[in-house]
Amino acid sequence: MGGVDDGTARENLLARAVRILEAFDADHPSLPVAAVARRADIPVPTTYRLVAELVDLGLLERGSDRRVRVGVRMWELASRSSETVSLRDAAIPFMDDLHAAVRQHTQLAVLEGDEVLYLERKSARGAEVVNITRTASRLPAFACSSGLVLLAAAPVDVQERVLASPLEKLTPYTVTDPAELRRQLAETRYRGFAAVRGWVHVQASGVAVPIHGPGDQVVAALSVIIPNEEGRVAPVVPALMATARGIGRALGATAGPTA
Amino acid sequence: MGGVDDGTARENLLARAVRILEAFDADHPSLPVAAVARRADIPVPTTYRLVAELVDLGLLERGSDRRVRVGVRMWELASRSSETVSLRDAAIPFMDDLHAAVRQHTQLAVLEGDEVLYLERKSARGAEVVNITRTASRLPAFACSSGLVLLAAAPVDVQERVLASPLEKLTPYTVTDPAELRRQLAETRYRGFAAVRGWVHVQASGVAVPIHGPGDQVVAALSVIIPNEEGRVAPVVPALMATARGIGRALGATAGPTA
Repeated sequence: MGGVDDGTARENLLARAVRILEAFDADHPSLPVAAVARRADIPVPTTYRLVAELVDLGLLERGSDRRVRVGVRMWELASRSSETVSLRDAAIPFMDDLHAAVRQHTQLAVLEGDEVLYLERKSARGAEVVNITRTASRLPAFACSSGLVLLAAAPVDVQERVLASPLEKLTPYTVTDPAELRRQLAETRYRGFAAVRGWVHVQASGVAVPIHGPGDQVVAALSVIIPNEEGRVAPVVPALMATARGIGRALGATAGPTA
Repeated sequence: MGGVDDGTARENLLARAVRILEAFDADHPSLPVAAVARRADIPVPTTYRLVAELVDLGLLERGSDRRVRVGVRMWELASRSSETVSLRDAAIPFMDDLHAAVRQHTQLAVLEGDEVLYLERKSARGAEVVNITRTASRLPAFACSSGLVLLAAAPVDVQERVLASPLEKLTPYTVTDPAELRRQLAETRYRGFAAVRGWVHVQASGVAVPIHGPGDQVVAALSVIIPNEEGRVAPVVPALMATARGIGRALGATAGPTA
């Protein structure tokens, strides 16, 4: 990279550091450095050097088995000031109550680009709660109830960008027709909730409502996943709406969503 | 930096990016770029360039007010694979139960260098739960009950490094004599818990127990903060121990701590 100018080299370096951090996920919580290089698509010697620097900074940690993993310093930097963590901390006690009442998976999500990022998924205490594959995962925004709620509140240019992008079915029931999705976004705004049946898993329905933050802007979506049986959606909507208002109040919303 | 070799420039860049992220904390969740430069001690033009790159990568976000804040991407990278998040997710439901039973602040902490890093602090639902100044904060390890528990289980070289460093009193009651601290570490190992009175706040006592993870290594400390009244420590110790065993089991410890 001798001929590359300083600015480009810099950009590459930070982008590469992020690609290294991205190499780790729930299925790969720790990796040998050679595997990091492969997954990040960075030459092995460069990866060794960058990993060593990231370990020095605490963003990665080296285990006794010579594998590396994401460091607690990453969590600290992400948690000390972020709105994501405030939102999650505010929402979790209310989600516990909702989960106790409806006894179904409950989820908290935000819009990140064209995708929904799940900040929290609640199940009963036990194996599933510990399973972090369910936290920090993503779904295409057009394809799930949380995404419809978040897109319905997003600026028109965001909606149109998403609807103009390639829309791939997750199941045979996922709606991918832009005109029909536009109609569903209008209906979501009008009704104050979104319900989709079999869009993500053929046997499950998602029901989502918006959470309002300060200034009454929509900051997140609260959803439950229920079986595809008749008459299951209607009873959870008021519980979702009540819980979303509680979370919004904890976040400093001046009023809840109005119908 | 024209004369600086590539390796050094690289190191500086990553370290500077981390210093920029460190500029944000609970009291400064969003900052104008000029304030970031001042807090990170980096020249303003360099800070503008680095902030722009970090925004492009999603590690920082720019608000409509031209202030920047830590991005949700930081949380995602920190959460998708980290042991910290698994530990926190496993512990929180048990901490809720403990908090409901003892009705005192309950805390989850790990050892980070010579300090205790609090992964979670629980209070009653309301203002305090949302207050993230309490999450991701640190205390010197020698000066609090969680630190004694974690140091008591740490390798001797870590203990001696901490005891050889300058030990500053947080209150007039903080013990800073290495010989007395060594005695307390031995007592903590023997009793299976640590209790300190007025070391962090003059009117409060901390009581902490270890949490064991896979392989029965101590991975964290669970603690409660109680008023400095006679007879308040004894009743919380069994509750702490029972809760710590539950968390350990959820983490995959094969047995709880044995007396």
